[in-house]
Amino acid sequence: MRISELSRRSGAPVSTLKYFLREGLLREGERLSGNQTSYDDSHVQRVRLVRALLDTGGLSIAAAKRVLATLDDENSSLAHTFEAAQHALGVGRDGSSRAAASEAARERIARVAARNSWHTSPENPGFEISARVLDDLAAIGYEPSDAYLAAYAAAADTIAHADLGALRDRESADLIAELMIVGTVLGDALIAGLRRLAQESATEELFPVAEPRADARPSGARQPQRRDPK
Amino acid sequence: MRISELSRRSGAPVSTLKYFLREGLLREGERLSGNQTSYDDSHVQRVRLVRALLDTGGLSIAAAKRVLATLDDENSSLAHTFEAAQHALGVGRDGSSRAAASEAARERIARVAARNSWHTSPENPGFEISARVLDDLAAIGYEPSDAYLAAYAAAADTIAHADLGALRDRESADLIAELMIVGTVLGDALIAGLRRLAQESATEELFPVAEPRADARPSGARQPQRRDPK
Repeated sequence: MRISELSRRSGAPVSTLKYFLREGLLREGERLSGNQTSYDDSHVQRVRLVRALLDTGGLSIAAAKRVLATLDDENSSLAHTFEAAQHALGVGRDGSSRAAASEAARERIARVAARNSWHTSPENPGFEISARVLDDLAAIGYEPSDAYLAAYAAAADTIAHADLGALRDRESADLIAELMIVGTVLGDALIAGLRRLAQESATEELFPVAEPRADARPSGARQPQRRDPK
Repeated sequence: MRISELSRRSGAPVSTLKYFLREGLLREGERLSGNQTSYDDSHVQRVRLVRALLDTGGLSIAAAKRVLATLDDENSSLAHTFEAAQHALGVGRDGSSRAAASEAARERIARVAARNSWHTSPENPGFEISARVLDDLAAIGYEPSDAYLAAYAAAADTIAHADLGALRDRESADLIAELMIVGTVLGDALIAGLRRLAQESATEELFPVAEPRADARPSGARQPQRRDPK
C-alpha cells in the first residue's frame, strides 16, 4: 500500500508517518519504481504500536526506540521485551530525578513479594516504585499496616493474572508484545480509574457527601466526620 | 517557631517555604515584634501536604491551590475535598488535550460499576480514565473480556476498602484529608509497582525468561513463544 493508505489504515497523519520513518521508529517500505514505496500490514501494526508507546505510554523517542529494538531483536524473548518495556515505563518516567527508595522500604516490599510467593528479579522496577510509595507515606507520618499492603498485593496478583489471560488471547508474538507494552501502561490507568469509582462508593459509607454549596450551613462548622459506627 | 525551625521540621528549604508563602499555598505565620514571624505545627503539616501535592501528585500550583481551598473551606465536607482532589489528580493530569472517551466505552464502565453495586456520580473522573483505556485498547484491536474487567474491578474494590481502612486510622480531619489526597496519588503508584512484580512472576509461568545476551543462539530465531499448555 502507499503511504496515504498506511495513513488511512493506521489513523496517523502522513506527516507523523514521515516523522516516524525519519526517527527510525518505522521501517522503510519496499522501494518500487521511481519514488514509489510500498507498505504492508506489518507497518500498520508498527505505527499503532509506536503511537501507543509515545501517546499512551508517554515514552520519549529514545525510550520507544529501545523498546522496539528489543522487540525486533530475534534473539530476545518476549519476556525480555516485556522487561525492557517495564523499565522504560517504570521508574522516573516523569523525568524526576528523585533519590532512590530507602533500604527499609525495599525490604518491606520484598517481604510482601515473598509472602505472595512471587518470583521476581531484584531489578524489577516494581520494587523501586512501590518502595518509594512507602517512603512518601512515611514522610506524611503514615506507615501502612501489613493488612493494607496485603490488600494491595492481592489486588496486584488478581490484575496480573487477568493481564496474562489477555495475552493468551493474542495470536502472534508481535501482537502479544504489543499488548504487553500497551497493557502495562493502560492497565495502570484502568485500575486507577476503577479505583476512583470504587473509592467514591466506599467513601460514601464512611463520610457523608457534601450538601451543595448553596445549602452550606451558616454555622461555618465542618460537617461531622465521625467514624462510621458500622 | 521561626521559619528556620519550620524548615528543619518540614524538611523543606527556607527558599521553598518563602515560595509557598508568596504563592498563597502556605498561610502567613503570626507576626511578632519587629520582622519576627512565628509558625506552628499546622504550618509543618501544611508544608508536608503542599509538597505531597506538588512533588508526589505532580499538581500545578493552581491545581494545588484549588484542592487546598476546598480543604480550608469549613463549609466543605471531607467527601467534597476528596472529590476536588480526585478531579485535580484525574483526567488530563499530564496536560494532554485528548478527545473524550467514546460513549460506548463509558457505558461499558458504567455497567462494570453497576455490576459491583458501586454508588458513583457521573462526574467521577474514574469513568473518563477507565473508558479511555477501553478506547485505547480498541485502537490496538483488543477488546477486553468481561472477565478481564471483572478482575480489575474486584482488584479496585479490594484497594478502595484498604484505602478507607487506612483513613480510619487517622485522628484529625486534616490528617484524613492529607491521606486522602496523598493516598490517591501514591496508591496508584503502589498498585502499579506491585503489579509489575506480580506480572514478572506470572509471566515466567507463561513465557520462558530470556537467556543472557551472551548465550544468544546463533540461529537468530526467536525463542519459542508458544502458549503454555497448562
